[in-house]
Amino acid sequence: MITNVAKSFAAAKKKYDRGDDALGDALALGGTCLATLHAHATFRRFGLFAGPPQIEYWVAEDAGALSRPYRPDLFIQDPAEFAREAEAFVDDMRRRTNGDPDRFDRVVYTTVTAFCLCYDVWKPKSRKTPGTFFEVLIGSAARVRFPGLALTKHIPIKAVPVDDVVDEMVEVDPGADEDTVEALQGDSVSTDLVLADPETDRGAVIPLKITTRERIVQPFAHQRILDSAYPGRFASFLACMSEVQRDDNSGTVKQICVPGTVALFQKHLASLNGLYYCDIPVRYARADLGAVIDVKPLHRLFDDVEAHLDAQSAS
Amino acid sequence: MITNVAKSFAAAKKKYDRGDDALGDALALGGTCLATLHAHATFRRFGLFAGPPQIEYWVAEDAGALSRPYRPDLFIQDPAEFAREAEAFVDDMRRRTNGDPDRFDRVVYTTVTAFCLCYDVWKPKSRKTPGTFFEVLIGSAARVRFPGLALTKHIPIKAVPVDDVVDEMVEVDPGADEDTVEALQGDSVSTDLVLADPETDRGAVIPLKITTRERIVQPFAHQRILDSAYPGRFASFLACMSEVQRDDNSGTVKQICVPGTVALFQKHLASLNGLYYCDIPVRYARADLGAVIDVKPLHRLFDDVEAHLDAQSAS
Repeated sequence: MITNVAKSFAAAKKKYDRGDDALGDALALGGTCLATLHAHATFRRFGLFAGPPQIEYWVAEDAGALSRPYRPDLFIQDPAEFAREAEAFVDDMRRRTNGDPDRFDRVVYTTVTAFCLCYDVWKPKSRKTPGTFFEVLIGSAARVRFPGLALTKHIPIKAVPVDDVVDEMVEVDPGADEDTVEALQGDSVSTDLVLADPETDRGAVIPLKITTRERIVQPFAHQRILDSAYPGRFASFLACMSEVQRDDNSGTVKQICVPGTVALFQKHLASLNGLYYCDIPVRYARADLGAVIDVKPLHRLFDDVEAHLDAQSAS
Repeated sequence: MITNVAKSFAAAKKKYDRGDDALGDALALGGTCLATLHAHATFRRFGLFAGPPQIEYWVAEDAGALSRPYRPDLFIQDPAEFAREAEAFVDDMRRRTNGDPDRFDRVVYTTVTAFCLCYDVWKPKSRKTPGTFFEVLIGSAARVRFPGLALTKHIPIKAVPVDDVVDEMVEVDPGADEDTVEALQGDSVSTDLVLADPETDRGAVIPLKITTRERIVQPFAHQRILDSAYPGRFASFLACMSEVQRDDNSGTVKQICVPGTVALFQKHLASLNGLYYCDIPVRYARADLGAVIDVKPLHRLFDDVEAHLDAQSAS
């Protein structure tokens, strides 16, 4: 049942990679995942995040295989409703607006989460694929929303006097995951999505992570390198789904948060313009972290990117 | 056959962690590993690093389980010879000298590698333990060599206005590896070994990695944070064993090198005082990288740390 999903993913990614509009394909794939889950898996309540506030999480399950936890209040479980909302989302992007903010968050959350649930239950070894799908979805939405901006993943860094850096990938461990590989290119900063204004040469770096986990250092290190190589030209907007994890022993959900680390990096490594989440971790929503770094719902991402690029081109 | 090794490792680590002299225990454990390998495994030639120059690598093998590749010219295979050299090494440390530089490299390489080979062949799932053993060995040697210096792993970073950072570890993914956990503490920079001069408050940070792989960003990010929080007080010396990997398809050994990344980080993220290896990767020994960062044999580590701390206290 996952073969279809994997094939549609490969087709959407190929379309996205060659620069075509893949937004419809990515959203349709979310619908396919939702339908597949309805046909072959069970949605059920898993347990609570202890809070405060308490938050209810569900999982998808098939033949004993359990998915990651998801928030039913953000997840559009009904396929017909999802199809309508997804269509409205595409219209919003075409009109270059966010439209209804809740719709933005719920459509993105449902599309990415439905894909994650399928992979969790039926293809758990492909751990990195959901992250790539998140990238294809947001990159595709950005391409529709910002037709005047250039999309890229790599920012070349010059003046490093070492030969052969373009061959660096060749020697990389073939078993290394995508994140590793992206971190190991020596002649560029390679991230998930860069929206650049061709007229000003300035850009918004958008690392897209389902969850950050131990990779939280990466966007800060990248921003620091960009600050050094191109002072003032780039700003980073870290976009994530959630930071949740099942605790099967207690039947509860944990939110894996490292507010001290985020604050430490923000203060002493490099300054990000904000953290964006569909399911904002409770700990990250608190005022003490908010005083150090903006933490916002995902629907704020595109407006903030736009404001940033406009402010820079006006200056 | 590995139970003894694991028990002796736990005992040596406990001794090291409580501040006692564990150098003899760590070296004796190297001898135990060597004897265990002689009794229950086969040492054999694996293949060549293609070069230039070509370098021969061997592996240990038991019941089809193959170890990582190692350099027989750096590895003291004879247990009696190893015991003599290890004893001389302890004497050198007690006299606060490096003694014979080749002996320093070969004793450290053999001790750590014999432990790695045992774990590769008989306990391959404990992937992080060899790195911890490397830490115990070098930290123990440093404690003997530099009785006037304070050993630590954590450098507190103050003035991050977020509560609860001391509890941050509690929520960390219990499946996360040690490196992850060490990167996720928010109120301090946590590395493998810090040698600090109590009179000047200055220190040498010594990240100890069997190989760097994708974690190469970590020491540079840490140094950058220290530069920001404590300008001029800390310098980093990254100490590694090697960067090798078996290629079973071709029967050759690869050296996984990212010279462009190292140069990029050194130039734009933070400046390390040097890279130290027992088995220096050929690509890292080339002059173009040497112009950006010092790459040296491991036996230079302690002298360079000492020179650095002395120069600072004199200034």
